[in-house]
Amino acid sequence: DRTPFPDDLDERLSRQFTFLVEIDRLKAVMRQSPLAAADRRENDAEHSWHLAMMVAVLAEHSDEPIDVGHTIQLVLVHDLVEIYAGDTPLYGDGSDQREREVAAAEELFPLLPGDQAGRIRALWDEFEERRTREARFAKAMDRLQPLLLNWMARGGTWQTPGVTADDVRARKAVIGDASAALWKAGRHLIDEGEHRGWSRRS
Amino acid sequence: DRTPFPDDLDERLSRQFTFLVEIDRLKAVMRQSPLAAADRRENDAEHSWHLAMMVAVLAEHSDEPIDVGHTIQLVLVHDLVEIYAGDTPLYGDGSDQREREVAAAEELFPLLPGDQAGRIRALWDEFEERRTREARFAKAMDRLQPLLLNWMARGGTWQTPGVTADDVRARKAVIGDASAALWKAGRHLIDEGEHRGWSRRS
Ligand SMILES: [Ca+2]
Repeated sequence: DRTPFPDDLDERLSRQFTFLVEIDRLKAVMRQSPLAAADRRENDAEHSWHLAMMVAVLAEHSDEPIDVGHTIQLVLVHDLVEIYAGDTPLYGDGSDQREREVAAAEELFPLLPGDQAGRIRALWDEFEERRTREARFAKAMDRLQPLLLNWMARGGTWQTPGVTADDVRARKAVIGDASAALWKAGRHLIDEGEHRGWSRRS
Repeated sequence: DRTPFPDDLDERLSRQFTFLVEIDRLKAVMRQSPLAAADRRENDAEHSWHLAMMVAVLAEHSDEPIDVGHTIQLVLVHDLVEIYAGDTPLYGDGSDQREREVAAAEELFPLLPGDQAGRIRALWDEFEERRTREARFAKAMDRLQPLLLNWMARGGTWQTPGVTADDVRARKAVIGDASAALWKAGRHLIDEGEHRGWSRRS
C-alpha cells in the first residue's frame, strides 16, 4: 500500500496526491550553494523555484525565441530525481550520476497515473538531452543561478579546494549555448570575481 | 546604489540580476505549515515551487479549462510581497495584510525594468482579485497544499489553539470555487482528520 490517503478517495486523485506529497522530499535535498538571504545552503525545491523566476525574467536574452511556460516546466521538474539520487555537486565526481538518476526516475514518476508519468519523464528527458532551445535555456539558468549566489557570497563554491577560475569558466560556458548576452555577463562576473580574489587564480 | 553588481554590466541586465538576487529572500520567509519530509516548517520559496507542481499535476480537475503555464506563473509570484510584508497565517489576524503587501509590491517590483515590473504586478493583482479562472485555481492550490501537509502531519496547523474543524472547512471552501472534485477530496480529508482526532471537533 503506497498511499497515505484514505482508501475511498478517487483512485486517480489518490495517486496524484501521493506523488505530490512524495516530492515534498525535494525540500530536504541540500545543494552546495550558499543562499544570499540566509546563512545556510540551498535546497533543491527553492532552487527550482528560483530557476523558474529566472526563466520568467531573463527569457528575452535567449538567442532563439523560447516558449516560456514550457521552459518553466522543464526547470520545475529537472531536479526531482534527486529525491532518491541525491545532489551531484558541479565541482565533484559525477561518474555514476546518470545511472542513479535514471533509477530514481523509474521509481518516482510511476507514482503518478501512467499518462502523467510519461509526460513528466518526457520533460526530464528533454532537459537532460538539451536538444531543444527550451532545454538549453533551462540548463543555462541551472548554471547561472549558482553563479549569482556565489557572486553574492563573494566566492561560495568557487572556493572549493582544487577549483580555479578556469574550472569555473569551463563549467559555466554552457550558458553560451543558449544566450550570448547572459554568457557575456556571467563571464564578466567570473573574471571580476577572480580579480577580487573570490576564486583561485588559474 | 541599489545594485550589488559591477557598474559596467549592461543596465537592463543589472536590474534583472538585482531583482533575482533580492527575491532569494523568499527562501527565508517561514510559513506555519510543517513539511512532510523534514522536521521543520516550510518557507515561501519551496511552497511556491510545490504549488507550481500541483498546478501541473492537478489542472485537469479545474471545473473550467485553464492555461497551465499562466496559472504556474501566478503561483510562482503570488507570495513575493512577503519578502517585505512577512507571512500572514491563515488562522490568525490579517487585518493590515493588504496594506503591508501593497507597500511591499511598490518597493520590490520596481527593482525590475519598468515593463517587467508592470507585468509582475499584473500577475500579482490577478491572483489577489481572483476574477479569472486561472487565479481561482491558483488560490485553490494555495489552500489545498497546506491541507495535504497537515494531513501528512496528522494535524499540523489544524491544531492551532482555538481552531475547530468547522473553521478549517470554512477557510478551505474557496477550493470549491475552482474545482468541485478537489473540494470534495479536500473536504473528505478534513472530515476524516476530524474523525481521527487530528483537529478539534466542532
Ligand atoms: Ca541538479
